[in-house]
Amino acid sequence: MATHTFTPTKYHITMAAHEPVLRIADGDTVVTTTIDARGGDASDTIVAERGNPQTGPFYVEGAEPGDALAITFDRIMPNRRRGFTGALIAERILEPAFVRTLPPKREVNWDVDVDKGTVTLTDEQSPINGYTVPMVPMIGCFGVAPPRKQAISTATSYVNGGNMDYRGHVAGVTVYFPVAEPGGLFHLGDGHAVQGDGEIVGTGVEISMDVQFTARVVKNSNIIWPRTENDVELMAFGNARPLDEALQYATTELLRWLEADYNLDTESASIILGQTIEYEIANVFDPAYTVVAKIRKSWLEQLAK
Amino acid sequence: MATHTFTPTKYHITMAAHEPVLRIADGDTVVTTTIDARGGDASDTIVAERGNPQTGPFYVEGAEPGDALAITFDRIMPNRRRGFTGALIAERILEPAFVRTLPPKREVNWDVDVDKGTVTLTDEQSPINGYTVPMVPMIGCFGVAPPRKQAISTATSYVNGGNMDYRGHVAGVTVYFPVAEPGGLFHLGDGHAVQGDGEIVGTGVEISMDVQFTARVVKNSNIIWPRTENDVELMAFGNARPLDEALQYATTELLRWLEADYNLDTESASIILGQTIEYEIANVFDPAYTVVAKIRKSWLEQLAK
Amino acid sequence: MATHTFTPTKYHITMAAHEPVLRIADGDTVVTTTIDARGGDASDTIVAERGNPQTGPFYVEGAEPGDALAITFDRIMPNRRRGFTGALIAERILEPAFVRTLPPKREVNWDVDVDKGTVTLTDEQSPINGYTVPMVPMIGCFGVAPPRKQAISTATSYVNGGNMDYRGHVAGVTVYFPVAEPGGLFHLGDGHAVQGDGEIVGTGVEISMDVQFTARVVKNSNIIWPRTENDVELMAFGNARPLDEALQYATTELLRWLEADYNLDTESASIILGQTIEYEIANVFDPAYTVVAKIRKSWLEQLAK
Amino acid sequence: MATHTFTPTKYHITMAAHEPVLRIADGDTVVTTTIDARGGDASDTIVAERGNPQTGPFYVEGAEPGDALAITFDRIMPNRRRGFTGALIAERILEPAFVRTLPPKREVNWDVDVDKGTVTLTDEQSPINGYTVPMVPMIGCFGVAPPRKQAISTATSYVNGGNMDYRGHVAGVTVYFPVAEPGGLFHLGDGHAVQGDGEIVGTGVEISMDVQFTARVVKNSNIIWPRTENDVELMAFGNARPLDEALQYATTELLRWLEADYNLDTESASIILGQTIEYEIANVFDPAYTVVAKIRKSWLEQLAK
Repeated sequence: MATHTFTPTKYHITMAAHEPVLRIADGDTVVTTTIDARGGDASDTIVAERGNPQTGPFYVEGAEPGDALAITFDRIMPNRRRGFTGALIAERILEPAFVRTLPPKREVNWDVDVDKGTVTLTDEQSPINGYTVPMVPMIGCFGVAPPRKQAISTATSYVNGGNMDYRGHVAGVTVYFPVAEPGGLFHLGDGHAVQGDGEIVGTGVEISMDVQFTARVVKNSNIIWPRTENDVELMAFGNARPLDEALQYATTELLRWLEADYNLDTESASIILGQTIEYEIANVFDPAYTVVAKIRKSWLEQLAK
Repeated sequence: MATHTFTPTKYHITMAAHEPVLRIADGDTVVTTTIDARGGDASDTIVAERGNPQTGPFYVEGAEPGDALAITFDRIMPNRRRGFTGALIAERILEPAFVRTLPPKREVNWDVDVDKGTVTLTDEQSPINGYTVPMVPMIGCFGVAPPRKQAISTATSYVNGGNMDYRGHVAGVTVYFPVAEPGGLFHLGDGHAVQGDGEIVGTGVEISMDVQFTARVVKNSNIIWPRTENDVELMAFGNARPLDEALQYATTELLRWLEADYNLDTESASIILGQTIEYEIANVFDPAYTVVAKIRKSWLEQLAK
Repeated sequence: MATHTFTPTKYHITMAAHEPVLRIADGDTVVTTTIDARGGDASDTIVAERGNPQTGPFYVEGAEPGDALAITFDRIMPNRRRGFTGALIAERILEPAFVRTLPPKREVNWDVDVDKGTVTLTDEQSPINGYTVPMVPMIGCFGVAPPRKQAISTATSYVNGGNMDYRGHVAGVTVYFPVAEPGGLFHLGDGHAVQGDGEIVGTGVEISMDVQFTARVVKNSNIIWPRTENDVELMAFGNARPLDEALQYATTELLRWLEADYNLDTESASIILGQTIEYEIANVFDPAYTVVAKIRKSWLEQLAK
Repeated sequence: MATHTFTPTKYHITMAAHEPVLRIADGDTVVTTTIDARGGDASDTIVAERGNPQTGPFYVEGAEPGDALAITFDRIMPNRRRGFTGALIAERILEPAFVRTLPPKREVNWDVDVDKGTVTLTDEQSPINGYTVPMVPMIGCFGVAPPRKQAISTATSYVNGGNMDYRGHVAGVTVYFPVAEPGGLFHLGDGHAVQGDGEIVGTGVEISMDVQFTARVVKNSNIIWPRTENDVELMAFGNARPLDEALQYATTELLRWLEADYNLDTESASIILGQTIEYEIANVFDPAYTVVAKIRKSWLEQLAK
């Protein structure tokens, strides 16, 4: 279980079977950094093309198509003070006629204070300059190489993960991806100091990050869509348009999870989910939207696993 | 501020300008009952046609088109022990190809124990017989007469409320409706002892209820869609298909709420909502789906209202 | 087979079990008029509330729930010269960001020349004043009383027909509706001198009409959604949001039609439709969108019916 | 204006900046072949991986990002007799509850007689064995390299074209693509002897083809989505989910086309399209659906271009 420190020097704006930057063993940990959605690094210098440029990919020994790659985020922490966001809710998230009333688009800066754990609007033009929310650092875009030799833009998301922009992807979670290429090929980038549901202004508080993650291979996994686990919940992801279809994928993946891991038939899993399922809308801004279907582990304790 | 006790004898399966069953003053309280989605009362006897039959409508003196009618649920409590649910996730909520694998549909019963606050599956056929979740009583379908002389089925929902099936509509909340007919004409029914997000098996734990509510008129309100408030959150509702459009209505209504009540311009309200908004998926089963856009009041405290 | 001449004096803006204006026998013909979408009559005088006010309803003797009501339009002809349309594609039909660039909304007039069969823009402000298209008169909104005592706004459409706004609903077609109330209760209004697919500016060339129709009862019909037949095609309608779901209803209804009337199993009907089906988008402006699934009768001639 | 004969030896299942197989000049013609969706060639031998394997890409000298690449199909002709189709309408195109009733999936063969111009079902199991439709050969999947170094699966479609599966893409049409990579990099494959709207059984009559096309560069084009022109119509394509959004892209692209090429303001173009636009649903089976927005050139003749 080695720990590798990796300093990226190049970045990708697709997820694909790119040349690995590092090969690690099953169970190894990597300490690295990500740059912001525009390619800005810890010194706020642009070092890559915009569009969620990715650190990686990392090749995990032993990961083969048919397996799952499990990534645990051990630490996600902003490594500079300036973050930025959009300042208007995106057109596609508002009533069509309301769009006519929108003022011009612009961006605003936020001060990210890691010690205080706060994120504060710093925009002299704004009547709410100084508006402050707590910091909840997360990674917006990460995943593995997709199937069938595709190179998927890091603007969007798919079965391999990608730009899911889910504010629950914080330190402590473990995310499972279906492996399509040998080594899995894990990419990561697009950190947010905080984000609301839906990423409705098109951004969280975009910022560069220090990240530590641990990779593990789960052999012969049956997963189709990304799955996330934390101490209290199981979560399945659907990445698609429209939102209705993202919800279908997420719900069906969570159903499959309960059937396989808790030895439930479809009816029993349905009865349980019917009264306990929770949904979150991760993003409704990216080309594919992301819905999270969740169940608290506590609702499963009375079942023999 | 009188309290009226009303015992219903007839029920409606549309929301419309039906003959009022009771006229009450602004600020009055009503103690009444609702029957279950199939028309079953406290004694589990069918007394009305199925399809969320409604108690009411109640005419609130002083409510005129252009006003809002505010309904506070003071108490929502099951008044019998047997509840029932669907036993399969609805076809439209699953991946289309997965639908081919579904077993036959049926319904199952649950024992609702008000004293213990539990809801327990009571189905001898089921391998999970005895499965138990906490009771969280809510009202699924309620609202006012719609505009333009429509009679809207209580299977669905619309600007006037209706079958929103939101599990957050519990005792303690206040719901605001746009008044379209004199008196507002408040209807209510379709109680659930508990429900998951999305009402994905087509039901919560359907049951008859004792309900107490208080009605208040808000003059010259600008609301378009239902709004709900509890101690900690503001919530706006969008009732439509597809889910994407329900989300547009909910988001825009919450934006209008912040603009009007917190004196914010669209950009400032967007900046705040961008990093603080939360969404819930109330139901994805009914003909119109329901999305809730929410903000915690604590995120608004630093603003001068 | 009597012919009745009926002059309307009141109009409805919902389809519902309104008091019939005339009772006719199975096979009878009615000669009547419709007013325009705003309530303007043949003399261009406003005589009713806007929103597709309907002539009728007509009670057809012998029509019972479970039957179909077949309406043949014998004649649809503008009865005045001035028509009007919207002048901008509706916001919901354009890319969301493009909506920001739209000029203000207004309406424009058209001269409808029945003798020449032309429709000509008459708007001095417009750089294309005088733009001319052929007249193709059609009825936009018509149908029967809906099920379960609903009163459905004539802004929208549903299983009972309504505001389908399909430019193929011209003289000569026969439309079948599922009967939900005794007598069927046929309503009609909202004539267009011509219309493009989708009704994308929110209107066709709106105008009052002389209409003649013949009503016939089809006993024990199995139809769920409206169906239309002309000399060359069978058409099934889906009225819903989103467009994807309207298409599901239309496709499934056409499949059911072939299965029942041509004695085909699902696979055979699928094989045929797979290579012959045609779709039309009737409207994408109204609250429910309308998709038409069609097959040419000539593709069915080689089958024993 | 040279004519090149090119015999493919390898095929791609993504559209991407693959190594060109041939470099041709602006205006040159290519005579080549395509294999079927499963990789079957003219001798019905599998020579490539399934999933619409593509011939090409062809590099057209002078095509630069910002230009359009215009491809005219001079000839599209099946080069073997056996075609095949799916035998059931796809689950996602039917009402969700109807999906439960579907029989098992299978495929059926068709005899494609180029001399007679017919396509005949040849399946002994089928009660409609011998069912015949006219041959209308088309190309389902073709396009150029996409932007931002993506490799897009030939299962789907996008701004660069791809698997649009439009039955109007027959010999004689010219299709314009936005160039994202030097040379454009034109790919083609997935021929159908005939296809219905929507490709609802998941296939047309899949077959290998002899194809001749001519490539031309249009400098400094403003196109965003593919556009097609034939003798009588202008057509703009939207490739997206849901169908509503595909329609938004198609409509807006056609509006931009009229504005740019016919010197119309948005209002004038809207007035014209409002009464003349036609839509086709190309496919509702692939991951992205395709809508075609069309106008007949005859409706534009009265305008000064």
